[in-house]
Amino acid sequence: MTHLDLLLLRANDDVAVATRELPAGDTLRLDDRDLTVLTDVPRGHKIALRDLPAGAPVHKYGQVIGSTTTAVRAGEHVHAHNLGMAAVDHAYEFGTALIPMEKAETRTFQGYRRADGRVGTRNFVGIVTSVNCSASTARMIADQFRGPIMDAWPNVDGVVALAHDSGCGLVPASEGGQILLRTLRGYASHPNIGGLLVLGLGCEMIGVDTVLAGLPDDSDTIVEKLTIQDTGGVRATVRAGTEVIRTLLDRLNERRRATVPASSLVVGLNCGGSDGYSGITANPALGHASDLLVAQGATTVLAETPEVFGAEHLLTRRAVSKEVGQRLLDRIAWWHTYVSAGGGTLDNNPSPGNKAGGLTTILEKSLGAVAKGGSAPLTAVYEYAEPITGTGFTFMDTPGYDPVSVTGLVAGGATVVVFTTGRGSVLGGKPAPVLKVATNSEIYQRMREDMDIDTGGIVTGALSLTDSGQEIFEAILAVASGRPTASEDLDLGRDEFVPWQLGAVT
Amino acid sequence: MTHLDLLLLRANDDVAVATRELPAGDTLRLDDRDLTVLTDVPRGHKIALRDLPAGAPVHKYGQVIGSTTTAVRAGEHVHAHNLGMAAVDHAYEFGTALIPMEKAETRTFQGYRRADGRVGTRNFVGIVTSVNCSASTARMIADQFRGPIMDAWPNVDGVVALAHDSGCGLVPASEGGQILLRTLRGYASHPNIGGLLVLGLGCEMIGVDTVLAGLPDDSDTIVEKLTIQDTGGVRATVRAGTEVIRTLLDRLNERRRATVPASSLVVGLNCGGSDGYSGITANPALGHASDLLVAQGATTVLAETPEVFGAEHLLTRRAVSKEVGQRLLDRIAWWHTYVSAGGGTLDNNPSPGNKAGGLTTILEKSLGAVAKGGSAPLTAVYEYAEPITGTGFTFMDTPGYDPVSVTGLVAGGATVVVFTTGRGSVLGGKPAPVLKVATNSEIYQRMREDMDIDTGGIVTGALSLTDSGQEIFEAILAVASGRPTASEDLDLGRDEFVPWQLGAVT
Ligand SMILES: [Ca+2]
Ligand SMILES: [Ca+2]
Ligand SMILES: [Ca+2]
Ligand SMILES: [Ca+2]
Ligand SMILES: [Ca+2]
Repeated sequence: MTHLDLLLLRANDDVAVATRELPAGDTLRLDDRDLTVLTDVPRGHKIALRDLPAGAPVHKYGQVIGSTTTAVRAGEHVHAHNLGMAAVDHAYEFGTALIPMEKAETRTFQGYRRADGRVGTRNFVGIVTSVNCSASTARMIADQFRGPIMDAWPNVDGVVALAHDSGCGLVPASEGGQILLRTLRGYASHPNIGGLLVLGLGCEMIGVDTVLAGLPDDSDTIVEKLTIQDTGGVRATVRAGTEVIRTLLDRLNERRRATVPASSLVVGLNCGGSDGYSGITANPALGHASDLLVAQGATTVLAETPEVFGAEHLLTRRAVSKEVGQRLLDRIAWWHTYVSAGGGTLDNNPSPGNKAGGLTTILEKSLGAVAKGGSAPLTAVYEYAEPITGTGFTFMDTPGYDPVSVTGLVAGGATVVVFTTGRGSVLGGKPAPVLKVATNSEIYQRMREDMDIDTGGIVTGALSLTDSGQEIFEAILAVASGRPTASEDLDLGRDEFVPWQLGAVT
Repeated sequence: MTHLDLLLLRANDDVAVATRELPAGDTLRLDDRDLTVLTDVPRGHKIALRDLPAGAPVHKYGQVIGSTTTAVRAGEHVHAHNLGMAAVDHAYEFGTALIPMEKAETRTFQGYRRADGRVGTRNFVGIVTSVNCSASTARMIADQFRGPIMDAWPNVDGVVALAHDSGCGLVPASEGGQILLRTLRGYASHPNIGGLLVLGLGCEMIGVDTVLAGLPDDSDTIVEKLTIQDTGGVRATVRAGTEVIRTLLDRLNERRRATVPASSLVVGLNCGGSDGYSGITANPALGHASDLLVAQGATTVLAETPEVFGAEHLLTRRAVSKEVGQRLLDRIAWWHTYVSAGGGTLDNNPSPGNKAGGLTTILEKSLGAVAKGGSAPLTAVYEYAEPITGTGFTFMDTPGYDPVSVTGLVAGGATVVVFTTGRGSVLGGKPAPVLKVATNSEIYQRMREDMDIDTGGIVTGALSLTDSGQEIFEAILAVASGRPTASEDLDLGRDEFVPWQLGAVT
């Protein structure tokens, strides 16, 4: 069905989304029949496409989002007054909804082959700080390598200072300490970082050598280290660090891109500043792009556990094994403890604003976020910043908060991140490029220099979900090959390195 | 008593600290008598100055640090083998050890009088970010105002971007949300910030208007605000923000320093990267400076609760009221819960390294930290980032972790911070100057450009504690009047704004 006033997210759904306000009495001409609007349907809200008896499951995204609480006729507004969660089956099943992806014809991109078998999409020098005490100094060193001076090293993408707030005043062996260490090591060994300076103060709890101790043996990353205390203070360290970086740049400038299969890609799927369109335009379009990547044998990584909560039983049904599905459920259980310790609850229920926008149930809301993950089988579940080693559609446990979530994905090895936004995010993710996908054309136009792709046409009928997904897929290949994203053009990503901070600060 | 080989921290102490290794058999000539060393005493360790029966209280810093577990003769090494905590009185008393400070002859400095009655020591434009999503953009704006361009505004100290990691993905009403908001408002209304731009993304949980809603009415801070989403993206916001800042700079350039009494000072007392000398050189010298400030009617603020733990009952005895003392005890109780939630304990016991350095008991170790607070009565106890409104010696509850602790003090209104360090810290605290005091001459020489004051002479006998304290006091007045500190010369403090992050990230 194609209709300018209705958006059908999956063939055979029971409801469609109104793309304009539909007054009662209007008649919509569908492919095969007429549909008369029986009650007013606000823009962004759902309309029944067929008669449904009371207690019937209601499908959207090809998934059950709830069941009718009364009989509903075709053409009626479907919302909280006639749709509830009562009869929804929440039983956890594993692997009962596997849709294997057919392998597609191989596509390629231009990437940096690394010695450990991974492929970079950028060629950066990274300055990883072990502690906040070396953050300002790291930035001073990186500041020496901005602007025209970089013309001397045309094959290098830049010098990125990875400054953070922690590294001391914590218990290194605690969960929070281990997450920080995993994150630092993930960046230090990221395929987009060819040359590395690990910079510390000298007396911190998580020191330079601790960071370096975890790096893989088979890496061709050129590694250097410095501490401010041993080097004799800030000025001496800026001088020494600048010399070290020059040497790294000279050597990285010799590296060249090569043609590699798309299967080498590790793509993070993320969203932030979501709006009423996110779940019906950009997210499902990105989901289609994820399926196209999986068909290439590439890896995609969904994240943001609190936003997936409520639809986790649908993900477990896509899990390739009970172990993989159970890992997701274990993380959800962990989150209940985590948020309740602060007196909160893991609550992804539609807010009053969500409800006004047309979202009725927690399942429907969560499905809008999960839509980024397409329909491929779930092959692995990773903890925060854990190395992403598998292929296919995977999940990483992260908070929903944008910089923390993207930091986890990049630490895990994502070499491209695709980020959907309705309100307008300006996130960068150095050393990984972040592609920004607008959910509506208004924000795409208003923040034209910050957005890469517009999916707003899905609502106006100008663009199909699959065409939009294909456009995202092609953009991923282009960006992976070196085309700068909007956020790279703006040199963003200098402050969005935000490791998940967990546990007491002492 | 003055003796090159011994350091007596307070007249009438039972023990002195050996400033070199003292072999058994040596005879030390004291003011009034000879002292024969009976057992080897390592450098930095304690020697008994008089015969002590078993069970006798042992005084250092004029305080009881424990009691003898056997009889100890004058000249014996005093350590874990003959000193314990058993008989120490830990009962909480309030106001039983008040030593009122005599008012001293008034000293002055050159400060910026502000409309609310407070006095600034610097004249900054601040860019306060409401959320991490505006951090990179804030830095881009501040970057427009570095170097020779600032010559146009000689009476302004600079433009500081206060970028942080939080502001969304949290519960605003939670303890963590309130601490963040208090911190942001504290910086936004800091007396060293004359012109303010509050910069947000637009859809964050703690928004620009929420930050501004808490600012005092009687302020003469010139306030502007922008959000990236409303302004149309990063590039448009950098342009708009740069214009806003130019206007603020033109107006702040009209402001002038005036002669004000030293009583207007609010001085934070802090330490980090401590070593075996901290408790016997820089910290007690800073304590003397604190007493001199209190005698002026100024405010000093000790912090770092975990490092004070173990000596809190000595602080309550100095409390001017039961309420003030009880507030400190309430914070300690809070800390027990905070650290135990992460499976840790509030443990300030001497580590093996501390013991090798000569520290025997938790009391002795904590007293070394508390020594920064001198001997004046404790007039108030503040929570983290709470506005510091009283005068005299006060305490703020903060973690010991340097950037988080100093951020709390500056948010509370500290206009100068004095920071003692043995291993070598390079902390800056924009918009407040941070004076770095080295505990030993080796680190002072090795990190000459990062250190302001050397207290190492106290150990060699070249400098008395009171002379060293006086030197710190004079440096505080000079820095408050505009003399740049080492960290200001180096433009540090760009990354050390680290609000205490508490609670779940969602
Ligand atoms: Ca380049
Ligand atoms: Ca998000
Ligand atoms: Ca100036
Ligand atoms: Ca920071
Ligand atoms: Ca400290």
